[in-house]
Amino acid sequence: MNSVRLLRAAATRARPCAALPRRRVLLNELAGHRYASTETHERPVVTAAAATKSAPKPKDVRLTAESYPNIERDSRFSTLTPADIAHFATICPLVSCDHGASEGELEPFNTDWMRKYRGQSRLILKPKSIHDVSAILKYCNARHLAVVPQGGNTGLVGGSIPIFDEIIVSLNALASIRSFDAVSGILVVDAGVVLETADTFLAKHHHIFPLDLGAKGSCHVGGNVATNAGGLRLLRYGSLHGTVLGVEAVLPDGTILDDLSTLRKNNTGYDLKQLFIGSEGTLGIITAISIVCPPRPTASNVAFFALDSYAAVQTTFTKAKSQLGEILSAFEMMDGTSQRLVAEVTGRRRPLQGESPFYVLVETSGSNPEHDSAKLEAFLEDLMTTETVSDGVLAQDETQLKGLWAWREGIPECLGHWGGVYKYDVSIPLPELYQLVEDVRTRMEQSGLLTAGKTSNEQGVDDVVVDVVGYGHIGDSNLHLNVAVRKYDKRVEQALEPFVYEWIQKRRGSISAEHGLGVAKRDFVGYSRGEVELRVMAGLKRHFDPNGIMNPYKYIKA
Amino acid sequence: MNSVRLLRAAATRARPCAALPRRRVLLNELAGHRYASTETHERPVVTAAAATKSAPKPKDVRLTAESYPNIERDSRFSTLTPADIAHFATICPLVSCDHGASEGELEPFNTDWMRKYRGQSRLILKPKSIHDVSAILKYCNARHLAVVPQGGNTGLVGGSIPIFDEIIVSLNALASIRSFDAVSGILVVDAGVVLETADTFLAKHHHIFPLDLGAKGSCHVGGNVATNAGGLRLLRYGSLHGTVLGVEAVLPDGTILDDLSTLRKNNTGYDLKQLFIGSEGTLGIITAISIVCPPRPTASNVAFFALDSYAAVQTTFTKAKSQLGEILSAFEMMDGTSQRLVAEVTGRRRPLQGESPFYVLVETSGSNPEHDSAKLEAFLEDLMTTETVSDGVLAQDETQLKGLWAWREGIPECLGHWGGVYKYDVSIPLPELYQLVEDVRTRMEQSGLLTAGKTSNEQGVDDVVVDVVGYGHIGDSNLHLNVAVRKYDKRVEQALEPFVYEWIQKRRGSISAEHGLGVAKRDFVGYSRGEVELRVMAGLKRHFDPNGIMNPYKYIKA
Repeated sequence: MNSVRLLRAAATRARPCAALPRRRVLLNELAGHRYASTETHERPVVTAAAATKSAPKPKDVRLTAESYPNIERDSRFSTLTPADIAHFATICPLVSCDHGASEGELEPFNTDWMRKYRGQSRLILKPKSIHDVSAILKYCNARHLAVVPQGGNTGLVGGSIPIFDEIIVSLNALASIRSFDAVSGILVVDAGVVLETADTFLAKHHHIFPLDLGAKGSCHVGGNVATNAGGLRLLRYGSLHGTVLGVEAVLPDGTILDDLSTLRKNNTGYDLKQLFIGSEGTLGIITAISIVCPPRPTASNVAFFALDSYAAVQTTFTKAKSQLGEILSAFEMMDGTSQRLVAEVTGRRRPLQGESPFYVLVETSGSNPEHDSAKLEAFLEDLMTTETVSDGVLAQDETQLKGLWAWREGIPECLGHWGGVYKYDVSIPLPELYQLVEDVRTRMEQSGLLTAGKTSNEQGVDDVVVDVVGYGHIGDSNLHLNVAVRKYDKRVEQALEPFVYEWIQKRRGSISAEHGLGVAKRDFVGYSRGEVELRVMAGLKRHFDPNGIMNPYKYIKA
Repeated sequence: MNSVRLLRAAATRARPCAALPRRRVLLNELAGHRYASTETHERPVVTAAAATKSAPKPKDVRLTAESYPNIERDSRFSTLTPADIAHFATICPLVSCDHGASEGELEPFNTDWMRKYRGQSRLILKPKSIHDVSAILKYCNARHLAVVPQGGNTGLVGGSIPIFDEIIVSLNALASIRSFDAVSGILVVDAGVVLETADTFLAKHHHIFPLDLGAKGSCHVGGNVATNAGGLRLLRYGSLHGTVLGVEAVLPDGTILDDLSTLRKNNTGYDLKQLFIGSEGTLGIITAISIVCPPRPTASNVAFFALDSYAAVQTTFTKAKSQLGEILSAFEMMDGTSQRLVAEVTGRRRPLQGESPFYVLVETSGSNPEHDSAKLEAFLEDLMTTETVSDGVLAQDETQLKGLWAWREGIPECLGHWGGVYKYDVSIPLPELYQLVEDVRTRMEQSGLLTAGKTSNEQGVDDVVVDVVGYGHIGDSNLHLNVAVRKYDKRVEQALEPFVYEWIQKRRGSISAEHGLGVAKRDFVGYSRGEVELRVMAGLKRHFDPNGIMNPYKYIKA
């Protein structure tokens, strides 16, 4: 009962968190680790990489065209000619084997960072201005040359990698911070500005970018907007549809659309920018955005709880929203299985004694450390008094704070320990969110792929499935369903699909919470959107891009 | 120096605000008053009503078709026949002179609440389900019958009133609260639910609708979404583009578009609902929405400051954002002229001694009254120490709190005292926001319509302009520019327009911050949106509504 005592002690001390660092350290420092490992794959199978624990070299990565044999090159598209390349050379810098570059120079653009997708582009264009982008698209549209816009190339669904010979338009060279007004908090930046660069700039002005994700060191803000990135701050600051105030974009025919408003209120006609947020480069190329940025929080606290049921997780979330209110910045759930596996693999001492079916990590970020601590302690006291949680700890210093986050952060890496992991990143209405994990576990047991009651230590090499695990951002109804396996077995995938998608469809959930569609989920979008919606979407695509040159073969079927 | 002492006393008391009511009273109770009087007119002239101080009866209201002689009835539209009415009678209840109703029964639907717009519809349809709406639009589209969707009819720009004989589709009968999940805070409601009804329902569940405006007792949530209402909570909860999660709508051809997601994260294709937010009924009829609602704050405080310059207003806003951070819920600016005129008209004792060029009202709403008070006091102390403000008071009880709000609330009514008011509701980037007021005052002086240095008491009956006043939601960069006049004089309008619109255009501001376009601003949208934007908008309109039947003659020129 050590941890309960720690909790109780924390709740009665006069200034229990005075020692906590007043600057917001955690999310920035841990984010890089979290994303790269947790939400790595969208719909992965057990790859050779997972089995051998070494990443393949670019040239060893399977061509996406081979992985998706059902996708054929669109015969409407022209093939690049020397005359085309000569023309592009008059517009901007480029990389092409037909223009002096080696194959190796093209590879970083043709392959994604997960080594999961590989394209066959022969030309990378590097526009230096919106006028370059305009000239490029105007020419491509007239010549029916297909185009893939590419930002930081940190996506998870193959959206920024060509399938065939599409021209890659890299936004790397559009990387200026255009303006920042410290009074309103409104930032205007080129699409190619790296998210971390923007946030570091804002930090100097005591503001924060209202989006945070692990790839922040590489991803572009333009790509963030194009993919409607959700990330770690959504619970607190809301979606980009609310925070992005303006978008500057080039339409498929080269037209420059200047909707780069810096106003919080502007009801003068259709909100065109909204169409570009999350359109994954299929309607044009975003060249700049404006966004309203909140003041940077100066205090951060973390608490960690054990709970007996998923119902208790929901009650705790309700209480956190009500009692922590405006300072609640993260509410993460991890099931007991996930924590047992992390303990098993890492050998670390668990933050709470014993085993519980559920754990929750609560983070607060605010403007007054003492007030935040007081709120958090009252919250802890209430949870204990009402017996909503069975146990809990409050981080006493930055080391403990990081240590607690590690039990959430460490899950994905640890799950890969046995060989591979089938991963799904889904949204499900909160009341039913965890039921998916239970139903998938039951299904695995019924399929003879998992033996009920046997822990990983008790299993043998012939036990295919190690376990079924659920964790995620409860605050956003975003579940990570993970099935850890020892080896590739077709039966696992057959048991999972379309079962998982159909299960989500019945609950009006989302098969892609935040990672988008790209090439990976294009064929599954029908599980989350209705026929009419898909028809309207296809109509919009044709309306904006009648020649279909923008990021073809992806997103939806136009 | 009474008020300074009050302030300093407040800043040093041990529990100074313990007596403050813990429930959030202010916004709800004052809101009705605020809106109806403050933001009444979009671009009003001095009407007979203003001069006589009595509202005209519906039949005395000028027909919109007469007020806007440049708008002609579109000859593509059919004229209603007895056969049409007989068909509609098989679909849903209706009101028509050709179906037993009196002219008087149609009047409330044909006239707006300001008595500013009057239409000539011969038929009001009252669908009871989305299927009724679908059947109506399918028929109208096939027959080329024009349609005006009508919610609570509380708009300010004539958007919900027909110009000619358009059929009115009233959403009054679609008024069910469909579901609420207290854990996620996600509410699903029919479009015809009155905003206050939704908020009262949420209050029972300790949540709050993330939008508040004075018309809440009449306006519909569907209308709020269709017009992208901003209101009083935008600074705190953000725009509807961020909080609305789903929209159910009927397209112009009767197709039912079910995009009624209840997910905070759902990246599966174009975010279609965004197009309907703020489209003012020109793309279809919204029949239901889902929205994420935050926990209801339990504490509210108000402070009131005098400042020597607009620069100090901006500094105070910056400090409020940083020091009050997550609990800041309103930041209203009133210029010295506005406060002098309110004092003159009401004869009330001013909250602060002397006269200052600027005043600011700051409201906080949070989950812990003591923490909020402590933050507010530290903020006051800092403002005084750094001499950012010259004077200030903190409301000590609910009466004082309401009293302080009255100095903001009372402005529009008081300005009408002399005869009439020219009003503009605009967004301007914060640094230049107040410059518009100064430039308009100079222009009035140069036009010989206002004598510099003469107060209203010193003016004679031949002084046309009483004064030029500015106030507004600094947190949203939303200025109310008001020109109070004694009588109608063409020269005032000539001095104001297009000067004001051109001034706003140069600063990339918005000629309509939150009230939309309707018929009133249709011809001025070009001052806030570029040619390309307007072309893309017109293309979208034609794409969704090729026959142009949805709310014609308004919004933009298609």
